[in-house]
Amino acid sequence: MLLDLNAIEMVVEELRDALKTEDAAAVARCAGKLSSRRTARELAQAPPGLVITVLTSMDAVKAGRVAGYLPPPGGADLLAAMAPTEAASLLTTVPSDHASNLLQLMPPLAREALVAHLDPAMREELDTISRYAPETAGAAMTTSFLVVPPEASVAQALEAIASAPPEIEKSTYVYVVSEKGALLGVASVRDLVRASRSETVKNVMTRNMIAVRINDSAVDAAKVLRNRRYAMLPVLDEQEKLAGVITLDDAADILAREIADQFSSIGGDRGDESFFTRPLGAVRRRLPWMASNVLLNLIAVAVITGFEDTIAQVAILAAFLPMITDMGGNVGIQSLSVAIRSIALGEAQIRDVSRAVKKELVVGICNGIVLGALFGAIALIMRGQWLLGLVAGTALGINVVVAGIVGGSLPFLIKRLGKDPAMMTGPLLTTITDVTGVTIYLGLSTLFLAQLAG
Amino acid sequence: MLLDLNAIEMVVEELRDALKTEDAAAVARCAGKLSSRRTARELAQAPPGLVITVLTSMDAVKAGRVAGYLPPPGGADLLAAMAPTEAASLLTTVPSDHASNLLQLMPPLAREALVAHLDPAMREELDTISRYAPETAGAAMTTSFLVVPPEASVAQALEAIASAPPEIEKSTYVYVVSEKGALLGVASVRDLVRASRSETVKNVMTRNMIAVRINDSAVDAAKVLRNRRYAMLPVLDEQEKLAGVITLDDAADILAREIADQFSSIGGDRGDESFFTRPLGAVRRRLPWMASNVLLNLIAVAVITGFEDTIAQVAILAAFLPMITDMGGNVGIQSLSVAIRSIALGEAQIRDVSRAVKKELVVGICNGIVLGALFGAIALIMRGQWLLGLVAGTALGINVVVAGIVGGSLPFLIKRLGKDPAMMTGPLLTTITDVTGVTIYLGLSTLFLAQLAG
Repeated sequence: MLLDLNAIEMVVEELRDALKTEDAAAVARCAGKLSSRRTARELAQAPPGLVITVLTSMDAVKAGRVAGYLPPPGGADLLAAMAPTEAASLLTTVPSDHASNLLQLMPPLAREALVAHLDPAMREELDTISRYAPETAGAAMTTSFLVVPPEASVAQALEAIASAPPEIEKSTYVYVVSEKGALLGVASVRDLVRASRSETVKNVMTRNMIAVRINDSAVDAAKVLRNRRYAMLPVLDEQEKLAGVITLDDAADILAREIADQFSSIGGDRGDESFFTRPLGAVRRRLPWMASNVLLNLIAVAVITGFEDTIAQVAILAAFLPMITDMGGNVGIQSLSVAIRSIALGEAQIRDVSRAVKKELVVGICNGIVLGALFGAIALIMRGQWLLGLVAGTALGINVVVAGIVGGSLPFLIKRLGKDPAMMTGPLLTTITDVTGVTIYLGLSTLFLAQLAG
Repeated sequence: MLLDLNAIEMVVEELRDALKTEDAAAVARCAGKLSSRRTARELAQAPPGLVITVLTSMDAVKAGRVAGYLPPPGGADLLAAMAPTEAASLLTTVPSDHASNLLQLMPPLAREALVAHLDPAMREELDTISRYAPETAGAAMTTSFLVVPPEASVAQALEAIASAPPEIEKSTYVYVVSEKGALLGVASVRDLVRASRSETVKNVMTRNMIAVRINDSAVDAAKVLRNRRYAMLPVLDEQEKLAGVITLDDAADILAREIADQFSSIGGDRGDESFFTRPLGAVRRRLPWMASNVLLNLIAVAVITGFEDTIAQVAILAAFLPMITDMGGNVGIQSLSVAIRSIALGEAQIRDVSRAVKKELVVGICNGIVLGALFGAIALIMRGQWLLGLVAGTALGINVVVAGIVGGSLPFLIKRLGKDPAMMTGPLLTTITDVTGVTIYLGLSTLFLAQLAG
C-alpha cells in the first residue's frame, strides 16, 4: 500500500489527537507509520511521563531513533526523568552520535547514574565520542559500519550487507580493513553484485577513496559528502584506523545547521540559541552583544549631540533622523542577507569580494537616486521646503549606497579575515550606516542652516 | 591511494593555477580528482571560451555533471556561447533536472537552435520537465531510475543495478513497475542480496512505500527523504505512473535553499536574488520593497513631527532617537532570526507561537531592564540629567520588550496565515519597533517637558 503526503499528514493528526488523549498505544501505532524525526518533533512538546510510556511501547530500535531526534534539552530531560536502568536500555538503541549529545546535556548526577548502567563497551564508545571536540568529524560520525577483512569473499561481503544490524541497515558500502584496523579500501554493493561470489574482496574493492580525519571540521566533511554524492564517508583516527563514518543524511543536517548559523550573524547571535533554549539561557546569550550594541550606538548619539544647535534651530530635522538610519540599516541588511546567502549556498567564493562590492555599488547608486528623490519629494510635500527635501533625500541616497556596499562586502571580509562569520555582523553594519547617515544628513543641514531655519 | 581534505585543497590550488595559465588539459586533469560541484564552482568565474575547452577535454559524463552545477546564468550563457551541436551533445549528459533549468535560462533563439539538435527522446523529456511548475516534485525529480517488471528474477534485478548507466550508478533501489508503468513496489539491493537469485522480484519487493506526486511541493518531498533517511523517493504522475525519482542529495540541496530563503525574509528580499543576478536585476528586485519601506517609515516620521515642539525645546532628545529605534530594530531582528532558525531547522512548529511569545516576553523584560538601566546611566552621565536618563532608559526598555515579542512571533504568525515567510518581515518589524519606540520616548519626554527643559 502506498503512502502519500496527505496520508502522512493524516497520520500526524491522528498522533496529535492520541497525544491529547494520552493514548500511548495509539501514539506508538501512528509513530510506526511516521519517520523517527517527525515522531520526535511531535513528541517534543508532550509531557515527559507520556513520552516515556510511548517510547517504551515502541520497538526498541524505533524508540532509540526517536529519542535521538528529540530536541537536545528535551531528550536529556527525558533520560534524566527515567529510571537509570530504563534510560540506559533506551540509550543503547540511540545512534551513538545522538547518544553522546544527549548524555552531555544531562545533569551530572543523572548522567553518572545512567552511565553506571551502560554495558562497558557502550560506555567506552560514548566516552571516546565525547572526547572529540564539537563541530569535528569525530563528534559527527557514527561508529557503526560494515567491515570485512581483505581476504573475505564477495559472498561474505554481500552477506555482511544482508545481515547488517538495524541501525545501519541502509549501508551499501563495506569497508575493507586490515587486522590492525587500517582502512585498505571500500566496496560498494554495486561492485560486489558485479563480481563473482567467490572472488576475494581485495580484488574488487576501490583503493582510491576519500577519507576525513577525526579532527577535521564536520562541515568540511559534510561538504565532501554532498559534493561527491557519496552515501557515507570514512573517518580515520590519529592512528589512521577507521574510527567511524559520516552518512549523507547526517551531512545534510550538518549543512542545514551551518547555513542557519551563517544567517544568525544578521541577528548578531552565535546561532547557538534554539527554540528550546530556556529564557534565562537566551538572556545570557543575547545580553552581551546588545549591551555592546548600546555602546556602539553611542557613536551615533555623540555625532547627533554635536549638531544639537542645528536641531535646536530646525527641530523638524529630527523627524527624518530615524528614517535615514533605518533605511541605511534595512538596505544594508538586505544586501548582507543576499551576500550571506550566496556564500552559504556556495555560489560565491571569498575571493569574489571585489565583485560583490562592484555589484552593490551599481545597485546602491541606482536605488540611492530613486529613493533619495522619492524621500526628497516626500519631505518637500510634508514641509513645503524644497531645500529640506533635497538635504534629506541626498543624505538618504548616499547612505543607501554606503549601506549596500558595506552590507554586501562585510560577510566576505569577515570570512577573508578567517573570522567566524557568526559574529555581530548586523549590529556592526547598522552602526556604520547610522553614523554615516546621521553625519551626512546633519552635516548638510548645518551647511544650509541659514536657509533651512529661514 | 587515500585522498584527504588537505590533498583536495591542494588539487583545487593546482586547478586554479591551471585556469590562470589557461591550460585546459591540466584543469581537466585536476577536475578528475574533484567533485563535479566543486569543479563547477571553480570554473564559474573563468572565461566561457576556456570553460568550453575544459569541458570538451573531460569525459562526457563528468562534463555533463559539471555543466549541470555551473551557477544557472553562467551555465546558460555557456551553452548559448557553444555551437548548437556541441551544446546539444553536452546537454545530453547533464542530469535532466539541471538540463531543463539551463535551457529555460538561455536566450530563446539560442535555445531553439540547441533544442533542434537534441534527439527527439531527450527533447520530449526536457519538454515534459519544463512543463512542471517550479518548486514542485516534478521539476526537482530526475527521470532516470531503475525499473524491472514484477516477473523479473532477483538475479535480473541485481543485474540491472550492476549495469546501471553512469548517471544513476549509485542507485540502490529497483522500482517494480507494471507494463502500464504503474508503481507496484520497490526492492532495495539489500532485499535482493538476501533473496535467492531465482526468486521473482514481486515476492521480494516492498509494497508499503511512500511516494509523492508531481505537483507536490519539492520541499515537502525533500523533507520526507530527509526524515525517512531514504536514498530516493518515487514521484508519480497524474496517471499514478512512476515519472521520476528525487534523490537524497538533491533533497539536501532543496532543503538548503529553502532554509536560506526563509532567512532572506529578514532582509526583505524574496531570496530569489543570487550572487550572479546582474546589478539591474538586483535593483528591480530590491527597489519595490525599499520604496514601500520609505512609505512605512513615514509613520515614524509623522509621529516625531507631532512632537516637534518638544524637540524644539529640548533638542538633545533627538540625539537618542536613532539609538532607541536602532536597538528596537536590532533586538527584534535577533529574536526574529532565532525564530526563523527554529522553524527552518524544524525545531519549532507553527502552533508553538504562544510559547515563542512567552519566551520572548521573559527574555525581553530581563534584557529591557538591564539595557534600560545601562542606557539611562549613559544618558545621565552624558547630560547630567537623571530625568532624561530615566525617560530614555524606560523608552528603550519597553521598546526592547515589544521588539522581542514582535520579532519572535512574527515568523510564526506569517506562517500561520499561510503566507510566504519570505515577505518583508524585517522591514515590517523595524517599522513597528520604530513607531512604538519613538512614541514612548517622545511621549514620556513631553510629559516631563517642564522638568527636562528646565
